[in-house]
Amino acid sequence: MNDGLITIGHGAGGILTRRLVAEVFARHFANDALAPLDDAAVLGTLESPPAFTTDAYVVKPLFFPGGDIGKLAVCGTVNDLAVTGATPLYLSAAFVIEEGLEVAVLDRVAASMAAAAREAGVALVCGDTKVVRRGEADGLFVATAGVGVFKNGRPARRPIAPGDAVVLSGTLGDHGVAVMLARHEMKFDAPIRSDCAPLNGLCAAMLAAAPGLKFMRDPTRGGLAAAVNEIAAAAGVGMELDEEAVPVDENVAAACEILGFDPLYLANEGKVVAVAPAGEAEALLAAMRRHPLGSRAAVIGRVVAAPARVVLKTRVGGTRVLEMPLADQLPRIC
Amino acid sequence: MNDGLITIGHGAGGILTRRLVAEVFARHFANDALAPLDDAAVLGTLESPPAFTTDAYVVKPLFFPGGDIGKLAVCGTVNDLAVTGATPLYLSAAFVIEEGLEVAVLDRVAASMAAAAREAGVALVCGDTKVVRRGEADGLFVATAGVGVFKNGRPARRPIAPGDAVVLSGTLGDHGVAVMLARHEMKFDAPIRSDCAPLNGLCAAMLAAAPGLKFMRDPTRGGLAAAVNEIAAAAGVGMELDEEAVPVDENVAAACEILGFDPLYLANEGKVVAVAPAGEAEALLAAMRRHPLGSRAAVIGRVVAAPARVVLKTRVGGTRVLEMPLADQLPRIC
Repeated sequence: MNDGLITIGHGAGGILTRRLVAEVFARHFANDALAPLDDAAVLGTLESPPAFTTDAYVVKPLFFPGGDIGKLAVCGTVNDLAVTGATPLYLSAAFVIEEGLEVAVLDRVAASMAAAAREAGVALVCGDTKVVRRGEADGLFVATAGVGVFKNGRPARRPIAPGDAVVLSGTLGDHGVAVMLARHEMKFDAPIRSDCAPLNGLCAAMLAAAPGLKFMRDPTRGGLAAAVNEIAAAAGVGMELDEEAVPVDENVAAACEILGFDPLYLANEGKVVAVAPAGEAEALLAAMRRHPLGSRAAVIGRVVAAPARVVLKTRVGGTRVLEMPLADQLPRIC
Repeated sequence: MNDGLITIGHGAGGILTRRLVAEVFARHFANDALAPLDDAAVLGTLESPPAFTTDAYVVKPLFFPGGDIGKLAVCGTVNDLAVTGATPLYLSAAFVIEEGLEVAVLDRVAASMAAAAREAGVALVCGDTKVVRRGEADGLFVATAGVGVFKNGRPARRPIAPGDAVVLSGTLGDHGVAVMLARHEMKFDAPIRSDCAPLNGLCAAMLAAAPGLKFMRDPTRGGLAAAVNEIAAAAGVGMELDEEAVPVDENVAAACEILGFDPLYLANEGKVVAVAPAGEAEALLAAMRRHPLGSRAAVIGRVVAAPARVVLKTRVGGTRVLEMPLADQLPRIC
């Protein structure tokens, strides 16, 4: 296919576009809703109210230990649906490609998206491809949108109250550090893999085990710090977190120590933080630990009435305020 | 807001991101489904089977006579739903922004998206913002996805047969030429505006007037030539089109003459080509002409059994095969 490189013509809507779609996307994503390659995909009737979300992905590099932009784009959108309590069903994918990208790279990304979609039990049913000239983008950007349904008729969003438990599904910072190290800009190497994974199975198990579960969020950009601050601020409450209870992989901890990063502010792509009534915390934790993506789940703190901020009780017995991050030192982490 | 320029921090998921979303997107798009700014939007229950589509937009320049990337992103996705016979309801929008873009530019784009969404009667209910460094993108890319419903229970897709009429809603090439001239790369100027518009009202009127309507498509990238070739090839039939019957604005015709473009291959963003039983063509045409976006609608040809290709009967009495375009000379037209 044109020396194996993407050309401007692949985005022009003619024969080259049709061929690229057929040979790369339709081949990997194959399903009945996609097959007609029509202007819009026809979905099955949705018996419950739908959920709808979207994300753009600009991660650099495109491939990193534990994942790639395609897996990330599928998991990220699946997870945004899953944490609201929805069952993800259908995804769309729009590609902005820089002229000169190897078709083989796009093929690997599409294969990875298809594998992640299979793992999550969702179908990639519609897409679009645009090509820009060299220097007008950086390799490949992907935007996915997702449709799910609330099978129990309502999202997992209930009022949070003092005394509720804050539960985290596993180690922090794996994704952020894995992508950072994959850029080879830092003189440091460690066997760290992104945690990129579809969370819908874990979230469903959590909802089943803790019917009173009040809130779930995947702590991506901005890390756990951003997620818990958003949750607390929206509810007008405070939180007390125990640093010692927050799981961090030892390699990630070492990398953060050396590179000067705080794992509580690093991006995760396969973790969920939840708020549940204290009385359901034990059942919730047990269910999470039975799931492969929740084996290191832990109660990391509790909701308090005041002060209305997130306070971290440190390992050495002190306390510090866990601020909402202003921005981030790490662009293009997802 | 940081000297009015987008910074890497605006895409980092922290305070700057929240502020940008609140001050630009949430302000313009305001609606109940978007308001919680949650991980996914909760939609109303859909009584009929849904349609789902996505498109990425990389048009250059961002603003052109008759439209901009925002209007285009809303109309394009609305139109992809509308031409299948679906009623568009909800849109998502994902933004990839180059560091240094003026916040005022993003604000104009968001305002334009909101206006187009109001015109189309759809709600922008979820979104995402990523920022890449200078030189890693070209200003702004937008990806929209859309959800609609088939109120009559099925898409407007019926088997096409010889004798069917081919109907076009108006002039060809306005969008392609308007964008081309807005780039100021060509020594030519003319008062030509993009036809960018939401077609859902027109498509609904067409379906009401011609209940036997078999197919609709919006001839965007690749122009009418790509659209009719796709329709004919999928049905295994041929088409005969009358060049004289195809409406082209006189300024567009003059520009094409001078610049060496064929309006039949240029992109449109507010036109629909339809196939209908010959017996319904007159009622269909009358309904289209009553609609502001179909005032220059015309029957431009007919479906034939053989040869299985699209043949154009030229103004001077000859015939030529209207080939499927291989690629396109005009990148970033949408």
